[in-house]
Amino acid sequence: MLGEARSKGAIATAIATCTHSCLRHLNQPGEPMTHPVSSFEFIVSGVLLAFVGVPLTAQTGPEVARAFREANEASILRDFSELLAYPNRARDTEDIRRTAAYIRDELLAVGVDSELLEIEGAPPIVYGELMVPGAVRTLGIYVHYDGQAVDPTNWTHPPFTPTLYTAAMEAGGQPRPFPEEGEAVDPEWRIYARSAGDDKAPIAAILPVLRAFREAGIVPTSNLIFFLDGEEEAGSPHLGEYMERWKDRLEDIDIWLFFDGPAHPSGRPQIVFGVRGSMGMEVTVYGATRNLHSGHYGNWAPDTGNILARLLASMKDDTGRVLIEGWYDTVEPIGEEERAALEGMPAWDEELKRELGLVRTEGEPEALPERLMVPALNVRGITSGNTGALARNVIPNTAVAALGIRLVKGNEPAHMRELVVDHIRRQGFHVVTEDPDMETRLLYPRIAKVTGEGGSSAARTSMANPFAQNIMGAANAAADRAFGPGSLVIAPGMGGTLPLRHFTEVAQKPVIIVPVANHDNNQHAPDENLRIANLWYAIDLYAALLTMPVTVF
Amino acid sequence: MLGEARSKGAIATAIATCTHSCLRHLNQPGEPMTHPVSSFEFIVSGVLLAFVGVPLTAQTGPEVARAFREANEASILRDFSELLAYPNRARDTEDIRRTAAYIRDELLAVGVDSELLEIEGAPPIVYGELMVPGAVRTLGIYVHYDGQAVDPTNWTHPPFTPTLYTAAMEAGGQPRPFPEEGEAVDPEWRIYARSAGDDKAPIAAILPVLRAFREAGIVPTSNLIFFLDGEEEAGSPHLGEYMERWKDRLEDIDIWLFFDGPAHPSGRPQIVFGVRGSMGMEVTVYGATRNLHSGHYGNWAPDTGNILARLLASMKDDTGRVLIEGWYDTVEPIGEEERAALEGMPAWDEELKRELGLVRTEGEPEALPERLMVPALNVRGITSGNTGALARNVIPNTAVAALGIRLVKGNEPAHMRELVVDHIRRQGFHVVTEDPDMETRLLYPRIAKVTGEGGSSAARTSMANPFAQNIMGAANAAADRAFGPGSLVIAPGMGGTLPLRHFTEVAQKPVIIVPVANHDNNQHAPDENLRIANLWYAIDLYAALLTMPVTVF
Repeated sequence: MLGEARSKGAIATAIATCTHSCLRHLNQPGEPMTHPVSSFEFIVSGVLLAFVGVPLTAQTGPEVARAFREANEASILRDFSELLAYPNRARDTEDIRRTAAYIRDELLAVGVDSELLEIEGAPPIVYGELMVPGAVRTLGIYVHYDGQAVDPTNWTHPPFTPTLYTAAMEAGGQPRPFPEEGEAVDPEWRIYARSAGDDKAPIAAILPVLRAFREAGIVPTSNLIFFLDGEEEAGSPHLGEYMERWKDRLEDIDIWLFFDGPAHPSGRPQIVFGVRGSMGMEVTVYGATRNLHSGHYGNWAPDTGNILARLLASMKDDTGRVLIEGWYDTVEPIGEEERAALEGMPAWDEELKRELGLVRTEGEPEALPERLMVPALNVRGITSGNTGALARNVIPNTAVAALGIRLVKGNEPAHMRELVVDHIRRQGFHVVTEDPDMETRLLYPRIAKVTGEGGSSAARTSMANPFAQNIMGAANAAADRAFGPGSLVIAPGMGGTLPLRHFTEVAQKPVIIVPVANHDNNQHAPDENLRIANLWYAIDLYAALLTMPVTVF
Repeated sequence: MLGEARSKGAIATAIATCTHSCLRHLNQPGEPMTHPVSSFEFIVSGVLLAFVGVPLTAQTGPEVARAFREANEASILRDFSELLAYPNRARDTEDIRRTAAYIRDELLAVGVDSELLEIEGAPPIVYGELMVPGAVRTLGIYVHYDGQAVDPTNWTHPPFTPTLYTAAMEAGGQPRPFPEEGEAVDPEWRIYARSAGDDKAPIAAILPVLRAFREAGIVPTSNLIFFLDGEEEAGSPHLGEYMERWKDRLEDIDIWLFFDGPAHPSGRPQIVFGVRGSMGMEVTVYGATRNLHSGHYGNWAPDTGNILARLLASMKDDTGRVLIEGWYDTVEPIGEEERAALEGMPAWDEELKRELGLVRTEGEPEALPERLMVPALNVRGITSGNTGALARNVIPNTAVAALGIRLVKGNEPAHMRELVVDHIRRQGFHVVTEDPDMETRLLYPRIAKVTGEGGSSAARTSMANPFAQNIMGAANAAADRAFGPGSLVIAPGMGGTLPLRHFTEVAQKPVIIVPVANHDNNQHAPDENLRIANLWYAIDLYAALLTMPVTVF
């Protein structure tokens, strides 16, 4: 399987082409090869660089994909629209299965050996593989084909009737027909439909890339394993079971690419090496056994709102520093690459503050990307009595705070929870896990019920990983072409949480998040949309990732 | 009009009896006088004691009323039941007018010159007068005949189908038929119906007293002006207008008696000399212009729940002491009588704490009655994001606290509001009264919207007032008879608020609150009820008040 080395510029580059026999995945039986290829070659040199794929033509993978896209823009939009018309809420069994079957068929049509994996009572996984003889690396590609629930009454158009606009609605865009074949497509157009951004866009982009490659006889430089989740928006409750049951198909994966999420808020594309973990807790403090009249008992009855306020105030100071003992102790320090990446990130805070109407943020002068490198404690909600027209003259018998905790690498959810509980105890509360009975109430002057189990750990892929560096290189090149030189934002971590536990904790694989959707895609909200330029970027990016040089280490 | 003094025991007592001509109010035309009286007499001596009424029979007013009640218990309950069957929500125009007309007719039937006063669009005032020739004092009697709204689905029986129980439902009482004439009535029975306690019981009690007096030829020692409100539960929006328009009928009133409210929580009867004022404020603090994802922005976006918590925590310490500058400065000190009354009040806190599941109250070791003598600041409600199943992964863009403020004598609502606003400013907030626009948001790191106007002042009638002391004496005697010696609780103030402004501030009259309902009457709630013993007490009490010795000062 070893072939001949070729050198391309300063970097030692090996190009592998594919025999007919290796193309079972790329061509449907009976279809003529548009670009027949005759052999493979690849190298494992002392420098440990191996490159597979990329035909012996003048055109690179991204060039081929771009040419294909430019020649087929109208039909790519039509295909996307067809995909978007499939209702895809995870719990709507019939709908989600139809969507899965449609995607499987589309993958088969572009040469991916695809099938539905099924566990009783769960939406299927759309599984696909495209094995490249000679490839020494395997990319896992995670996408989810299910979408958030919709309330059609809040949408301008029915959420599963994709509607093309000349620009974003907020920017004065107007609806227009889908273009005819050959008609020019404005990259500022937007397609409005549920899942346009989250997360059908990657599916709509990978299909034309694979079709273009197949037509041009290009094979990827890595094996590809597609694993398309059908219940991400429902918390992926069966993902672990799927990954366990079919683990033999996943064990060769070197790195997972998560095709999900939006661009950097600046609008620039990004690639993200980590996510924070997430954990919820809820604290209830108690006054009397029932709401008391604020006139008859005010100044005497425990003032639950004030008791809760003092507890919450004890947890974080005015600068945003969490005051819970040990809160920052387990944070795993970031490396040099991550520090450099943080420093290279766009100075976006001032713009974001202007957009959000803020003069001061928590932890200033530290910028947002840095603030995502430490665990966060926020009040997600407080409920006690009522306000506004519903306010009544009572001293509420309870006050409840929902805490949202975000973890970073090194934080263990159970440990962080214990820190919070210990802090509450130190504030003089007797901590319980159920509403206190009368006996308990009559024993302790201050009682707090603390609930909330589980939680997900943070994950972060080291930027020092050579394969990760190949991916960064490919993404950089695609971003340079689509958005201009140096446009790619390389983020050591994002603030949000993705269901990475099964990947990073159970299967112990690195994950890199490769978002393509415009930052203002309204994901999870009404009038979700994708900007066409972002779809074109996705096509470029995937073409680059599928044909990137592969460092063997 | 001056007559001859008579002495009765240690107290100089004057007894006035009534000529036929003065009895137009007591007897319907054509009815024979059962106890004809021929003259009046009263005294204004150097000691300034005047007594009117009380016939020259062996029986005192309370004795007459008690004998009448004992002879007519079944029919008194039937009459009460008839009254309770009238639906009486203030806004139900037809119903409330029917109720008013019924009560007017009942008052007329016992010799009160009664009519409906009417302002367009408001429930009528049932007005009544019983003028006693020779009387030198006039009692205003305030009752409200409207009731709280009902949701019949929460009631055991339909709220306007009065149902008799052998005891409180919670104590295992069972429904039973209303008694036949002559059948023994157990004073522990309860009548369940809306307004049984709040506030038709006083109407049901005053009617038999007046009937008994009329039959026995007893005239009250004071003139009586009845002023029955039909929209108290709706906040008495037209009461001021009514009192202004008919002020010539009210100007001679020396003191108002409020026949409203429940007994002391100990179950003992009480008489109350003051109410706290009430005032609501609402504080909204702002984060970003919209809810932000707690993952993407947590540690960076202002944490509105924490900001509000720190503000609220700054307002009151763990012992319940309000930390707002000047909060206690304007409190008018109580007098010796009030201090003595406070010390004489039942030590009820420990019992109440046991009932309410509390180990520690605000301001301990001060007891509840003392705590009602200082202004209170409570959190009536907090709203920010959501908790429980509705909690979402957001940093809410606002957090709102509704503050409930109770004022005592000396506190001026506008001044107290300004103290709160000043305090909020001192915590670093820019205070606004409308949601801030973008320009404002971008000028101030911390913004608080503070709303809430109006409010009612506290009122307190001095216990040194000699007429007040007559009233206390009568109430004491009635309570001694009904509940045992020394049972009356004399409270300088209650914690709640009554719509006294028009009485105490506008008309500048003293008010004393004379409750009769059992403390557990479920007022404002489903299954409202009156304990029969409390109705009997009301009859005794009113008979005593109507025939008390009157000090002229």
